Amino acid sequence: MQQIPVAVLGATGMVGQRFIELLANHPWFRLVAVTGSERRTGTGAPIRYGDAVTWRLTTPPPTVALDLPLLGPSAEFDAPVVFSALPTEEARELEPFFAARGHAVFSNASSYRMEEDVPLLIPEVNPEHLNLLVTQRARRGWRGYLVTNPNCSTIGIVLALKPLHDAFGVRQMQVTTLQAVSGAGYPGVASMDILDNVIPYIGQEEEKIERETRKLLGQASDGAVLPAEIAISAQCTRVAVRDGHLATISVALTQAASPAEVIATLREFRAAPQVMGLPSAPDPVVIVRDEVDRPQPVRDRDAGKGMAIVVGRVRPCPLFGIKFVALSHNTIRGAAGASLLNAEYLHARGSLLP
Amino acid sequence: MQQIPVAVLGATGMVGQRFIELLANHPWFRLVAVTGSERRTGTGAPIRYGDAVTWRLTTPPPTVALDLPLLGPSAEFDAPVVFSALPTEEARELEPFFAARGHAVFSNASSYRMEEDVPLLIPEVNPEHLNLLVTQRARRGWRGYLVTNPNCSTIGIVLALKPLHDAFGVRQMQVTTLQAVSGAGYPGVASMDILDNVIPYIGQEEEKIERETRKLLGQASDGAVLPAEIAISAQCTRVAVRDGHLATISVALTQAASPAEVIATLREFRAAPQVMGLPSAPDPVVIVRDEVDRPQPVRDRDAGKGMAIVVGRVRPCPLFGIKFVALSHNTIRGAAGASLLNAEYLHARGSLLP
Amino acid sequence: MQQIPVAVLGATGMVGQRFIELLANHPWFRLVAVTGSERRTGTGAPIRYGDAVTWRLTTPPPTVALDLPLLGPSAEFDAPVVFSALPTEEARELEPFFAARGHAVFSNASSYRMEEDVPLLIPEVNPEHLNLLVTQRARRGWRGYLVTNPNCSTIGIVLALKPLHDAFGVRQMQVTTLQAVSGAGYPGVASMDILDNVIPYIGQEEEKIERETRKLLGQASDGAVLPAEIAISAQCTRVAVRDGHLATISVALTQAASPAEVIATLREFRAAPQVMGLPSAPDPVVIVRDEVDRPQPVRDRDAGKGMAIVVGRVRPCPLFGIKFVALSHNTIRGAAGASLLNAEYLHARGSLLP
Amino acid sequence: MQQIPVAVLGATGMVGQRFIELLANHPWFRLVAVTGSERRTGTGAPIRYGDAVTWRLTTPPPTVALDLPLLGPSAEFDAPVVFSALPTEEARELEPFFAARGHAVFSNASSYRMEEDVPLLIPEVNPEHLNLLVTQRARRGWRGYLVTNPNCSTIGIVLALKPLHDAFGVRQMQVTTLQAVSGAGYPGVASMDILDNVIPYIGQEEEKIERETRKLLGQASDGAVLPAEIAISAQCTRVAVRDGHLATISVALTQAASPAEVIATLREFRAAPQVMGLPSAPDPVVIVRDEVDRPQPVRDRDAGKGMAIVVGRVRPCPLFGIKFVALSHNTIRGAAGASLLNAEYLHARGSLLP
Repeated sequence: MQQIPVAVLGATGMVGQRFIELLANHPWFRLVAVTGSERRTGTGAPIRYGDAVTWRLTTPPPTVALDLPLLGPSAEFDAPVVFSALPTEEARELEPFFAARGHAVFSNASSYRMEEDVPLLIPEVNPEHLNLLVTQRARRGWRGYLVTNPNCSTIGIVLALKPLHDAFGVRQMQVTTLQAVSGAGYPGVASMDILDNVIPYIGQEEEKIERETRKLLGQASDGAVLPAEIAISAQCTRVAVRDGHLATISVALTQAASPAEVIATLREFRAAPQVMGLPSAPDPVVIVRDEVDRPQPVRDRDAGKGMAIVVGRVRPCPLFGIKFVALSHNTIRGAAGASLLNAEYLHARGSLLP
Repeated sequence: MQQIPVAVLGATGMVGQRFIELLANHPWFRLVAVTGSERRTGTGAPIRYGDAVTWRLTTPPPTVALDLPLLGPSAEFDAPVVFSALPTEEARELEPFFAARGHAVFSNASSYRMEEDVPLLIPEVNPEHLNLLVTQRARRGWRGYLVTNPNCSTIGIVLALKPLHDAFGVRQMQVTTLQAVSGAGYPGVASMDILDNVIPYIGQEEEKIERETRKLLGQASDGAVLPAEIAISAQCTRVAVRDGHLATISVALTQAASPAEVIATLREFRAAPQVMGLPSAPDPVVIVRDEVDRPQPVRDRDAGKGMAIVVGRVRPCPLFGIKFVALSHNTIRGAAGASLLNAEYLHARGSLLP
Repeated sequence: MQQIPVAVLGATGMVGQRFIELLANHPWFRLVAVTGSERRTGTGAPIRYGDAVTWRLTTPPPTVALDLPLLGPSAEFDAPVVFSALPTEEARELEPFFAARGHAVFSNASSYRMEEDVPLLIPEVNPEHLNLLVTQRARRGWRGYLVTNPNCSTIGIVLALKPLHDAFGVRQMQVTTLQAVSGAGYPGVASMDILDNVIPYIGQEEEKIERETRKLLGQASDGAVLPAEIAISAQCTRVAVRDGHLATISVALTQAASPAEVIATLREFRAAPQVMGLPSAPDPVVIVRDEVDRPQPVRDRDAGKGMAIVVGRVRPCPLFGIKFVALSHNTIRGAAGASLLNAEYLHARGSLLP
Repeated sequence: MQQIPVAVLGATGMVGQRFIELLANHPWFRLVAVTGSERRTGTGAPIRYGDAVTWRLTTPPPTVALDLPLLGPSAEFDAPVVFSALPTEEARELEPFFAARGHAVFSNASSYRMEEDVPLLIPEVNPEHLNLLVTQRARRGWRGYLVTNPNCSTIGIVLALKPLHDAFGVRQMQVTTLQAVSGAGYPGVASMDILDNVIPYIGQEEEKIERETRKLLGQASDGAVLPAEIAISAQCTRVAVRDGHLATISVALTQAASPAEVIATLREFRAAPQVMGLPSAPDPVVIVRDEVDRPQPVRDRDAGKGMAIVVGRVRPCPLFGIKFVALSHNTIRGAAGASLLNAEYLHARGSLLP
């Protein structure tokens, strides 16, 4: 099969490195271009990616990427599909530029997630939101388009909520997150702030969970999304864990369900990516464990190659009805893997190339 | 002033060590006896406490304790006041024995906390529950008595709730705890279970928070406590922190209050121990911090010498009305310090000695 | 190819679990039996391995093992090859029993490592020590035999020394280890002993490094090993790392060598397992990194699937001549993987089956 | 007694904060001025120290400091004594400026430590090096003077060596350090680099240990120091510890000594600061522990209020003769406390004020 050439924007950061790792040996995509910041690429001769990057993942860097030249932030290249690991500010400026130029842009940045005509996509959750792209391209005059994926903590929560929302209706959710330090990038959280400690605050994270969840579970129509009417309250903390966001969740359902019914519903959940057998789609997408003390970050974050959600301790909640614990890998399913799955989904539908 | 002789039961464990530490240089009490398990004390010549104990606190062991002989579990000694750091099973058997023999027993064990005629006491919260002692002594025929203190995670939560309950009425509470490993004693949590990890389960902890909170905020009358009618849901986790239990809390109040009113109410809270100036009473007992990222275990757990509660991030909750974060030192305010303050309170009221 | 049936003794512990993991999908061996302690297997109906084990690795347990019955410690089974993850005391009693019964026993226990007629084997280092087996079987009257592998910290050190010893002669070595908590098994190191801490002591570890290194690099002749004349001093510490033992090493060479010569010698090192392409043999076996701050446990322990040694910071030492840092995965190359490679090596030589 | 006004340069960083903490309630010194960087103080109205600093110590900031205005880097103030917590570059530029202006400058920076006419002082070790000040002032034409203290890892090592050097002569030392993250300042070490990890490299640290040790134990004469002839090799690592540098040390002595003699010599060591009873001098300055597993950072770093050195595991070394483990608090004895003790020593000798 002819592989589709792809590029990674902001390829030297931690999410950029995850994109590089996940794209190595990908059956459908072939990495052909990487970009870096003005600071790294601005002057003189082009620099090799392998020389520019300080590789921080625990797996070695794929050799295919090492010899690529690190291009400037707005370089031209022959790759219809672009994955963006840009920081928020740069993403705000550059992603429309690439979409206008005709690229299919899959962005992990938060800059455009809440724009009315931009799909905030999880293929297992709201594939119909892709209809927004018609409006988006018409309104903005882009030859390409922009699809975003949710915040690293939102995505695990919503994947656990989706089957329950379909089956019983979710009216309310209270969530407390215990988030890994990799979520803050590199250098990110200082060691003096996290050894023997917890930080009970992550800037803008609670707001993102609250608003992104409603958009993801909302109805797309007339070029915009009507948010789901779910009352949400989030408290976010940072703990001494490298990877894997844990969340304690309570939900109030429209139609009451027992823990056994909730467990069965979660276990039965299969959506388009699973049915289509997309390369990065985990199957099952939600794993429910029976042990009383699971999920745990170090033991469960790599489930489904980091793309599955692991749920445990499903039990009655005196206040909401049901409570449980959920875990997701924040830099795979919560970042680069999410963007990649979005692109795979569009490709399988035949609508990837602009 | 004449000091009152006191003993510590179960003196070699971690809570026992905290009792020893807090009793060194105490203005009112003088440590004269320590007991250990049958295994340690059973045969042959008496052993020095200093030889029997493997000291695990980060402060050095007080010299006054080192030369005391480690007595057997049911030894006789001349100390009217007894602090119990016994494990649950041993406490169930031995505490009534000491109370019957005429000792005032202040217990950190959970064995009798929920018995109808046993006060579960926080002097700032429910001093009137001490009236139960009349019933207790009459019904059980004890010459002494038994007073207990709450679970290490409950006490911090309830000290934050009490001022709000008095001022506005607490109807509902949702809490997620992030608890320190010292709460599991020694050896307790295995390092392979907590490095780069979170354990989302602590046996019986959620149940203790739910039922102890209702008893503590309930009404004592006719020799029993009518539990407060507060709907409570708890999710408990263990994190890689040495000391200091953090809790993310949401509360529904009977009478609505703004964050500013909640903060003012917490800051103004002073109860009998503060007014009386008890040696171990912190003043203020609830500290409210304004920084967005506090309280934190490593920075706030020693506030008020480990006896104060530190609250932060008081803000509106879309579901309950108010949410915030609270921190308490689990082996000081949450264990040995709580028992000690209970004894100080009875002494100041003139009713310590049986 | 016909697979050889193998058994794992002490299969429920951490090293036992690593054996199970490494044997799943092994091209030459097929797991057919597992044993546990008297306590687990003693009474009543046989229990499934999957029900008996609390799986502690971060990869899921292989399904092939889950349905095997957990046999008693001295059970009979049809597997000529046995891997022993028994604790020291049990190993001392049971390993001769299995060797006498005709099994080829590959042991990770320390019980017999220093016995004169027992090979302490690293196939890359001292394959000629297998000649001891002739003496062993004759003297002990065993139908089978016993081969041991070194202590978890020794093996990484010796693999780094071997190429230097061959090329230049090693006269002296000073080593300080920073060892992972998994080396102490489960529950092993208490979290209160290692969070925000280092323990500068591991019982018997320094002695093991000093004597095992000399045996491994010694000459086998006349049914015994003449230890290498290397003066060794070790200081061993435990650090807050899950897996991966790091060692800072200084060596005095008989024939002086520059850092560049040392690096070249390490990089060129290939021994029989690499030449033969044994399934568990890493190639290269010693990886030398150029970055100033490598090797690091979290980034390098999985090199060569946990079977390679990673060396860095090769530089002059004012006292010894050469110093460097070495890292090895303590529960793979330092335990189960070492035993497995030993068995593979004998199989490739055609002398596995007794 | 009339207190001496003092200032702290670079008061907002981590070492600056330690100075502020240690100066609160000091019996001899009174903090009257604090300086910050150009960036913080450059424009507009003066800012309060309490508003400028992000306090990172676990003890609360002393109130006396909070209201001081944060002065610019080269501000004038009325304080004859100055403590410098400046970064290396700023120290190189500013310390001579303050010394020239007539201040007694006690610096924790490395910029001038190895200059021939600058005392690198530990009052217990080399008080006679203060004679260099005569040369320093004459040669440089300063009205004040500059005294430095050693690197945070050097000082603990040298305090353990000094008694041995006096009694037996130290010829060689091999040391491996396991250093705390606070030694890198704030934000310093990224959490992704240290959770579940060790970094076997600290820039310039090994060189500092090697050269500073020789200067500290050398002979001052003719306006310069003749370095001690000790062959030294250091390997430095960073571990997941907040505070407290641990070192495994081997020493070759000119005159052989048994472990018992070494222990007795260390325990008997008392130097001028102890005899004089300086406010910050620990007594004993070297604590030798008998337990096999001490010293440990979390349990021993606060010995002597962070100013004592804790030694353990003194035993024979097959290579050097004697080996042991030493621990010191890197931001107290290894930084701010060291400077402060230097000033106290000069004050007690009557030669503090220029």
